[in-house]
Amino acid sequence: MEDNGLPEEDNQEILQNLDESGQTEELVEMFEELPTPDVVEFLEDKPVQDIISYLSELDVEDQGRIFSDFAMDLQLQIARTFDPKKVANIFRHMYSDIRADLYQQLEKEEQIKLLPYLDKKTREDVIILSAYPPETAGGIMNTDFATIYEGMSVAQAMAKIRHDAPSKDMVIYIYVVDDAMVLKGFVTLKDLVLADPETKIDDLIDEFYVYAEVNEDRESVAKKVEKYDLAAIPVLNSLDQLVGIVGHNDAIEVIRAEQTEDMERLAGVIPSSEDEGYLETPSLKHFQRRVGWLVGLAAMGILSGMIISEYQGVLEKFLILAMYMPMMAATGGNTGTQAATVIIRAMSLGDVSNSDWLKVVLKELKISALLSICVAALTYLKIVYLSFQGLAPESFTIAFVGMTISLAIAIQVITSAVIGAGLPLIVKRSGGDPAVVASPAITTLVDITGLLIYFSVASWLLKVT
Amino acid sequence: MEDNGLPEEDNQEILQNLDESGQTEELVEMFEELPTPDVVEFLEDKPVQDIISYLSELDVEDQGRIFSDFAMDLQLQIARTFDPKKVANIFRHMYSDIRADLYQQLEKEEQIKLLPYLDKKTREDVIILSAYPPETAGGIMNTDFATIYEGMSVAQAMAKIRHDAPSKDMVIYIYVVDDAMVLKGFVTLKDLVLADPETKIDDLIDEFYVYAEVNEDRESVAKKVEKYDLAAIPVLNSLDQLVGIVGHNDAIEVIRAEQTEDMERLAGVIPSSEDEGYLETPSLKHFQRRVGWLVGLAAMGILSGMIISEYQGVLEKFLILAMYMPMMAATGGNTGTQAATVIIRAMSLGDVSNSDWLKVVLKELKISALLSICVAALTYLKIVYLSFQGLAPESFTIAFVGMTISLAIAIQVITSAVIGAGLPLIVKRSGGDPAVVASPAITTLVDITGLLIYFSVASWLLKVT
Repeated sequence: MEDNGLPEEDNQEILQNLDESGQTEELVEMFEELPTPDVVEFLEDKPVQDIISYLSELDVEDQGRIFSDFAMDLQLQIARTFDPKKVANIFRHMYSDIRADLYQQLEKEEQIKLLPYLDKKTREDVIILSAYPPETAGGIMNTDFATIYEGMSVAQAMAKIRHDAPSKDMVIYIYVVDDAMVLKGFVTLKDLVLADPETKIDDLIDEFYVYAEVNEDRESVAKKVEKYDLAAIPVLNSLDQLVGIVGHNDAIEVIRAEQTEDMERLAGVIPSSEDEGYLETPSLKHFQRRVGWLVGLAAMGILSGMIISEYQGVLEKFLILAMYMPMMAATGGNTGTQAATVIIRAMSLGDVSNSDWLKVVLKELKISALLSICVAALTYLKIVYLSFQGLAPESFTIAFVGMTISLAIAIQVITSAVIGAGLPLIVKRSGGDPAVVASPAITTLVDITGLLIYFSVASWLLKVT
Repeated sequence: MEDNGLPEEDNQEILQNLDESGQTEELVEMFEELPTPDVVEFLEDKPVQDIISYLSELDVEDQGRIFSDFAMDLQLQIARTFDPKKVANIFRHMYSDIRADLYQQLEKEEQIKLLPYLDKKTREDVIILSAYPPETAGGIMNTDFATIYEGMSVAQAMAKIRHDAPSKDMVIYIYVVDDAMVLKGFVTLKDLVLADPETKIDDLIDEFYVYAEVNEDRESVAKKVEKYDLAAIPVLNSLDQLVGIVGHNDAIEVIRAEQTEDMERLAGVIPSSEDEGYLETPSLKHFQRRVGWLVGLAAMGILSGMIISEYQGVLEKFLILAMYMPMMAATGGNTGTQAATVIIRAMSLGDVSNSDWLKVVLKELKISALLSICVAALTYLKIVYLSFQGLAPESFTIAFVGMTISLAIAIQVITSAVIGAGLPLIVKRSGGDPAVVASPAITTLVDITGLLIYFSVASWLLKVT
């Protein structure tokens, strides 16, 4: 027992060593013992034919368990290479949600070829689970749950679990149903173990369970799992029948996926609904996900051009203003993005709600007032000490020009922070997802307000139009 | 049983109705039945004195369970109002990790006042758990796990669990330890239930378990829970002794927190280590988290000023170039931010690794080539049809000027995408966290490269310097 408690790197080493020294029997034994993801990591690098021959050495339950953890494209490759009878056998022992995903990826003809080899229960399970849209509770749930009936005693319930459970992955909650599979409540396996065998299930049952509806958005399901610290949440159809469960691991996957969507939206990238990696996604699809915002915002750039052409006179006289235009725009964009990100995140974590809008705006005013002092001071010093005096007419001191530009930048910082924080609030208030207020949109918007502020302040203080 | 399967809103209604009709006894009964977060949601809005008197009605286990779920500042308020003996009693029944967090929030004198009332086991547990840094496995673990010994039979193990477990929240894995608490492996409660009572634990034990080290970074712990689909992960000290477990719910919390950090970093906001809400955080602290990047990048803006002053001659002759400067900068910033976000996310999800850098760069070249065609075409049409002809000298056609500017923008889109995708890769390669490549940093960088491209192309094609 000297090799217990191994971190995953060492597990890879064990497998590699057994493989290199040709100890196939011991290697296959390790496939049964080691955590599935480690076995999968080792196998995925091998040629498909090798994977298939390794799998064939395993008993069919282990085949199903390991196969379930392969990447989808590898599953497809193997399913197409293996003979249908063997595929059907693996199918029967796969996790039900992954099995349904694989089934959906098969071509129509491949599905039809496979179906006759499946037992009735597996076939029905696959077809039903494949029917739900992937963004719903139904689309992510599995059917690997254990049930008992009302009116049973603890001893009877335990007997039923012993009969049903070996095929289930993890048994934590035992769902109490009636003859029509209508969910009545649940007990935990621990409750059953601790209870007297004569106790009635009705006395142990927890009736106030949290559940998900089969058409419920998967994000809402994941939030329930998180809020109620559930190991799994039952999924009910419109007749209150138990049709599946969503486990904590599925909830984590959803949380990760939704976070990716949030980040992408914030950067002005349209999230993809498919679960493809960066390198696997074709360039054309990447292009489609980015081009909308990019071209849209570039088109809005026309406004900044118009503002500049409006103030052409000022610019011709004070070419120094052109020098600080990029810094002005960048600072505004940065301030707006910072504020928007902090607010969007606070809203998604539930720290800030719609009714807090005034508090948020006041807070951003305070924060940005402090920021504007720092940025304006820096700008002033920069202009005075690195003066491009030649760029301002003789009649104005560089100090005065510097003050003008610094004042404009200070105002820009404050308005940018308020716009950056305010936009997501407005979107949320009107029922939208605040994360759609992409950072590029804020950047472009504050570019425009920034130029207006810049040239208004300049033409007012420098008395030119 | 007509009220089973209630969603949380209805649970709030039940509590509200019982409260309004003064049915205190039934209300308190509901506190015992309903899911904890729903009870907490109802209670948190009440005055502290009311909360205390409600709590007093409950038995002490329920007190500990509900109290554990209160927000930290409410826990502190109650702990300071309640008498120390009662607080000690609640303490004994709180979740161990939350209890340690609360203990750390108490003033030194308050801690000293409380300690004598705690039983020896609770006292030691609190002091040990409080000792670990919050960013480590030790800082987030709890001690609510069940253990059995090697050499026991299943029947003996079940008897030990029946004896120990009632105080534990959820029992899924049972950890097998030796006399010195060194972890030997685990069995699941299901394994025990399914096994023959005479079976030896040694025959059921799973020795190749995944574990966390007590000083391991919490993000790495959460990733293990996610990768291996664990309901909980055991935490070992340097002597391989089992000192705690981290549950899937804690892992979700860590994933959320790390995600917030990533988003904030990407927006150029320094993540805060404390778990404070937006509104609770003082403005000064918000200011400190944002001022660094903002002023630093504004200081870098000096470079853009220098570039523009270098090309003063071009700008004076072609004031139209000033018109498209903001759009140029914005488009570059947007393209760079899009590319960086997609790559950072792909890296954090494990889709892209260091060795893929060439593939990523080639892919971004393809994507941005497509994007640049669209943006350049739009720019050209804009310039030609909304021509500010007056802004270019007579000797140049607006079409030629438009072509020049469009070409510059096309080059800018391509370089920005490559910079945006490349920077996180370089940071990762040199061992850093790619998310530190804040979007503001990329924006500022491509502003500078953009101006260089813009004026080089313009002065070359328009033959002015």
